[in-house]
Amino acid sequence: MTIRYPNGKKFQNKRILSHKKNDKNKDERFSNRGMSLEEDINVTNEYYRSHHIAIIHKKPTPLQIVNVNYPKRSAAVVTEAYFKKPSTTDYNGVYKGRYIDFEAKETKNKTSFPLKNFHDHQITHMKEVISHHGFAFALLRFSLLDEVYLLKAEDLFSFYDEQDKKRKSIPKREIESCGYLIPIGFHPRIDYLKTIDKILSVE
Amino acid sequence: MTIRYPNGKKFQNKRILSHKKNDKNKDERFSNRGMSLEEDINVTNEYYRSHHIAIIHKKPTPLQIVNVNYPKRSAAVVTEAYFKKPSTTDYNGVYKGRYIDFEAKETKNKTSFPLKNFHDHQITHMKEVISHHGFAFALLRFSLLDEVYLLKAEDLFSFYDEQDKKRKSIPKREIESCGYLIPIGFHPRIDYLKTIDKILSVE
Repeated sequence: MTIRYPNGKKFQNKRILSHKKNDKNKDERFSNRGMSLEEDINVTNEYYRSHHIAIIHKKPTPLQIVNVNYPKRSAAVVTEAYFKKPSTTDYNGVYKGRYIDFEAKETKNKTSFPLKNFHDHQITHMKEVISHHGFAFALLRFSLLDEVYLLKAEDLFSFYDEQDKKRKSIPKREIESCGYLIPIGFHPRIDYLKTIDKILSVE
Repeated sequence: MTIRYPNGKKFQNKRILSHKKNDKNKDERFSNRGMSLEEDINVTNEYYRSHHIAIIHKKPTPLQIVNVNYPKRSAAVVTEAYFKKPSTTDYNGVYKGRYIDFEAKETKNKTSFPLKNFHDHQITHMKEVISHHGFAFALLRFSLLDEVYLLKAEDLFSFYDEQDKKRKSIPKREIESCGYLIPIGFHPRIDYLKTIDKILSVE
């Protein structure tokens, strides 16, 4: 059941994946296992919104709609649509007047983060955001270790742009040294804005 | 062929509508007629992006995906999905470090702009954006007059919130007096950022 973009990269339907996980592996003893990164971030963003901290939303999955049926007296049904390659990152919004933009990815690897998780378009988009003084970054989860790191986009670029010459993944020790481990909590679950506060206070 | 949201409001599939228009009414003598507002804004945003002025994208149409088919050796097909009520506006991005957020709507009316074009969620979202110091507004096109106005969200709210007591539409003379007429050009077509520059330089 692998979905691929036209360029051969895998499409991760996080909603479907997370349902599978919930069915098979849900174990309440472990804090976040069984919850997809996307779900955790959505809950975090809703916490930020309802507590008047920031307005950050996930963008809908981009689909090319080809066919729509209009049954009488009920909702329109899209009966044919295709996944499009995203031209931006998944999340953006506003925090203290500042434009925030990020991508969230997870891996089951324990020692490195595969760069194939990112698309060229997303990297280009993040570079553009930075050139217009937005704040762009990636949230990287090592799902089997239950660790989430914030990696500034500038640091991600240096690995992404060198992957043909060097390696196709970012070693975890590099992420530990140039990224920021985000403590996992309950409310909010992944408090990435607290980490951004720290970064911005130093800059 | 009217699609309705669960609350009874019409869903405007601008892409499909614009194709229809192009088929039936395209008349090259008239500058923008036949081009949907969405297409004009997308072209404008692409101009801003390629000229390093701003990064502003339209969000994909939100769909609830129910069923996906995975044919062998070809792209996955969404075979059942439903339109969801958007919880944000359609466009956002970054301009000179500032968070920009807006909704674009058009009407065939000539003397007023119907408020039913806006959803409660979108108005709430714009209020939240402003409370976090983002810049939120609406682009309103009177399509038969070929006029596009920028109306600051704060001005839109005053009409939207009073519609049950007062009228269900904004009189055009009010839009002319508190909004900003955007000159229509070729590159870019709808230069709304120039209008924002003027507004911000006064504030």
